[in-house]
Amino acid sequence: MRILIALGGNAIKQEKETGTKEEQIHNVDVTAQQIARILAADPTRQIVLTHGNGPQAGNLALQQDLGRTGGIPAQPWDIVGAMTQGQIGYMFQNRLQTRLAQLNIHTPCISLINQVLVDKNDRQFQGENASKPVGNFLSEEEAMQMRREKGWIVKCVKPSAAKPWRRVVPSPDPISNVEAETIRGLIERGVIVIASGGGGIPVISDEAGGFTGVEAVIDKDLAGQRLASAVGADVLMILTDVPAAIINYGKPNAQALGTVRLAEMEQYQREGHFAPGSMGPKVEACLRHVRATGHKAIITSLDKAVDALAGAAGTHIVA
Amino acid sequence: MRILIALGGNAIKQEKETGTKEEQIHNVDVTAQQIARILAADPTRQIVLTHGNGPQAGNLALQQDLGRTGGIPAQPWDIVGAMTQGQIGYMFQNRLQTRLAQLNIHTPCISLINQVLVDKNDRQFQGENASKPVGNFLSEEEAMQMRREKGWIVKCVKPSAAKPWRRVVPSPDPISNVEAETIRGLIERGVIVIASGGGGIPVISDEAGGFTGVEAVIDKDLAGQRLASAVGADVLMILTDVPAAIINYGKPNAQALGTVRLAEMEQYQREGHFAPGSMGPKVEACLRHVRATGHKAIITSLDKAVDALAGAAGTHIVA
Repeated sequence: MRILIALGGNAIKQEKETGTKEEQIHNVDVTAQQIARILAADPTRQIVLTHGNGPQAGNLALQQDLGRTGGIPAQPWDIVGAMTQGQIGYMFQNRLQTRLAQLNIHTPCISLINQVLVDKNDRQFQGENASKPVGNFLSEEEAMQMRREKGWIVKCVKPSAAKPWRRVVPSPDPISNVEAETIRGLIERGVIVIASGGGGIPVISDEAGGFTGVEAVIDKDLAGQRLASAVGADVLMILTDVPAAIINYGKPNAQALGTVRLAEMEQYQREGHFAPGSMGPKVEACLRHVRATGHKAIITSLDKAVDALAGAAGTHIVA
Repeated sequence: MRILIALGGNAIKQEKETGTKEEQIHNVDVTAQQIARILAADPTRQIVLTHGNGPQAGNLALQQDLGRTGGIPAQPWDIVGAMTQGQIGYMFQNRLQTRLAQLNIHTPCISLINQVLVDKNDRQFQGENASKPVGNFLSEEEAMQMRREKGWIVKCVKPSAAKPWRRVVPSPDPISNVEAETIRGLIERGVIVIASGGGGIPVISDEAGGFTGVEAVIDKDLAGQRLASAVGADVLMILTDVPAAIINYGKPNAQALGTVRLAEMEQYQREGHFAPGSMGPKVEACLRHVRATGHKAIITSLDKAVDALAGAAGTHIVA
């Protein structure tokens, strides 16, 4: 069985933490132990991992900004994304190799630098449509200055805050994973692959079949789905901070979902049960996977992952 | 023919440049065009690329330091190394894919996050033996403060400068490339692999066969040699800013070397013709490759790479 696991931000950094190496290695190690258990439970399982990068990219972008005082040029978002693929990929690769070795499992494990193709005509690239807030909060004055000097799109995202503005970048829909064939080849040879980190480095295609990086942020679950379908994953498993998707969230009739058929889940989606920017894209990624492949998608939490694969936890979306 | 190409720093950033994305993408693109020519000249060639990361890691470490003023924890050197593998790997992968596509060559290309094993008992980890200066220049006061607060080893590396001190980290000898088998598998399937960037992320092994990252910097040519031997490279080609290795450098009898036998080159090395920290480790890497494999090693410049592989340029060290 081939499983693509999409890891949420809490697999790397907890909300209250500042993001030291020690904190992040600890969190990644906890995650690696669960992934190792998934493999120990059934050594024939083939695993592809993807992960978010929000807090890491946020910290790194702020450092890029503060580094200007030292005369060091700030790198744009595609480079920052590539850097976090290196940072987070290394931590997962290192901890997973170590936890597997302790279980005497000798499956090789590798992280890849990985680009995801987007459409330069995506609505998110047009006018002020960009919707993904990135980097630090700004005063109105700072925001207007960055807009003038750098052409940033800035939006007032938290009106009650002292610094209510933030830069926003496009969050285009992922089309395909540029290195999908290489990734598929590795999986078929029994390698655990960590790829599409942070939603992948966003690129647009040029005339001759080459690629140009763009300043954008792709949703990691939607990008993970493209990869899952491309590598023929039997299961897309999205791990988040709750054990299941919930309808009527926060109401007396709230209900955690178990096994749900595609059409029923689409109905819940249309009824607006899943919040945009939170459960929304996770459910959308699952629906796309089930539609594209006829295979299963699971939403659950890290600590329920082993049980969920045994059918004993999580929301299972089936054709 | 399988060729491991080790790229010098000038393949990514020229000395006078500050290191903007535009500058670096341009340099990487120039390099990518040469690599594409190497492949166009003989499509059966299998290429592995490695590269340095000195200026990029230097900039990133300074940004990590300046980021403290914003409350963001600085990442240690193994993480900084991993980040530069992402940054530089992405740029090479992107430009190489694009330049190959323009030549209608459809060889896949992938950058890997890659660890290199070192010995925790390496002399460089003992006492004040560490020898690789990293990060920015410090005043004596700053240097002593970092020594007290963080246990850094600091050395007065440029006595004439206003800030003459720098942190030094160990530069241990590379033992082996942790992901060599996966890399070999990719090459055998016809993929161009970019690996061991910046000399690889330095790790030491733990009891159970796992790995722990350490704060160190591995010489990229010596690490590249370990990978070249492990993947069975027919040629180790080290590209630097001069077209050949030179004996009696700077003297009236200075002589650029063409084809040289192993024993003769060892003799030149013993006589001290190759400066430490410059041509020294490049020659050492070549000698190790020829000794370990009986195959050839070449030292030349980027613009002579195509000619050198045709036997018409560069220093060729043969068994």
